[in-house]
Amino acid sequence: MVEKPSTRPATPAYHADTHALVNRLRRIEGQVRGLQRMVETEAYCIDILTQVSAVTKALQNVAVSLLDDHLRHCVTDAARLSPEEGSHKLEEATHAIARLIRS
Amino acid sequence: MVEKPSTRPATPAYHADTHALVNRLRRIEGQVRGLQRMVETEAYCIDILTQVSAVTKALQNVAVSLLDDHLRHCVTDAARLSPEEGSHKLEEATHAIARLIRS
Amino acid sequence: MVEKPSTRPATPAYHADTHALVNRLRRIEGQVRGLQRMVETEAYCIDILTQVSAVTKALQNVAVSLLDDHLRHCVTDAARLSPEEGSHKLEEATHAIARLIRS
Amino acid sequence: MVEKPSTRPATPAYHADTHALVNRLRRIEGQVRGLQRMVETEAYCIDILTQVSAVTKALQNVAVSLLDDHLRHCVTDAARLSPEEGSHKLEEATHAIARLIRS
Repeated sequence: MVEKPSTRPATPAYHADTHALVNRLRRIEGQVRGLQRMVETEAYCIDILTQVSAVTKALQNVAVSLLDDHLRHCVTDAARLSPEEGSHKLEEATHAIARLIRS
Repeated sequence: MVEKPSTRPATPAYHADTHALVNRLRRIEGQVRGLQRMVETEAYCIDILTQVSAVTKALQNVAVSLLDDHLRHCVTDAARLSPEEGSHKLEEATHAIARLIRS
Repeated sequence: MVEKPSTRPATPAYHADTHALVNRLRRIEGQVRGLQRMVETEAYCIDILTQVSAVTKALQNVAVSLLDDHLRHCVTDAARLSPEEGSHKLEEATHAIARLIRS
Repeated sequence: MVEKPSTRPATPAYHADTHALVNRLRRIEGQVRGLQRMVETEAYCIDILTQVSAVTKALQNVAVSLLDDHLRHCVTDAARLSPEEGSHKLEEATHAIARLIRS
């Protein structure tokens, strides 16, 4: 985002939750370091896999939060500006959702 | 790696690949830190979501590698020891797979 | 299709694609019947699993199409009517997306 | 499967559960027909998406059951025959699991 704060009337999509989201991503970073230690210390495979599932779920929850804010702010903003821009924003969001559903 | 070869006859399931797996998890840790920076610098939501999909896929690939080694070594070892132990190991593996499929 | 255009001002979200969607769901129904035959005739497990993956992907693609139309029509319509209604519609859509990502 | 029943000592992987599995697939077929009716009668998008998630979960559960039986019978049988065949069977199973995790 290259917008200048002084000229920006609308706050970015996830502005209010930036701090909370970064904290969730820090916990996920810690979980990934935990996975490294589990592999290095030869933890039981199944326990490592259980932890991989937990990290994947935590990442998906971050994605859902981002998407909720994105649809709420960016998309409705764009819809007010022009039909073309709104249509483009929704197409973009749908592609991102499709990637999340398939990953 | 605290393993003492002289006192452990069976190598752990993912022994040969430990180094490669830890490296893959370090790259994933770096990607999660990249996600934090993207959120902090207010990167475009859709770009963050695309990166979340990439991290999820990388984690799933680590899970598939771990599972492949687990099935190859632990499970076939267990199957040789006793039918009960083999059956228990497979039940455990199936539950881990189910969690991965549903996450 | 029992819709009478004269008495309904807003077209449903997926109106234009109803026929195409029903055809895709009929193909999926055929694939599920194919799975029954595979199980009944004791086809090789791995071939059945490959076909289950194909049906799951086809269903996810139908979901993405429905979601795209939903976001395009229902949500933007609702956003024009009232902020509360628009907010409720987006919350509902986010929950549906979360269920699809986690399933 | 090209085996002749008279010379086959081991029952196929999912033999005992064939009837139960076919019944579960019949219920899934009915759910897919229900989806067609929902689309044809212009049911609310979100309700259709909820039903798509339910069908996807039901299919994944069928896959997990098939995989459990497959690992239990085919793989352990193959492991007894030759290391190469066992290794091939496990590679094949891992690929099927990877497809399910990514779908």
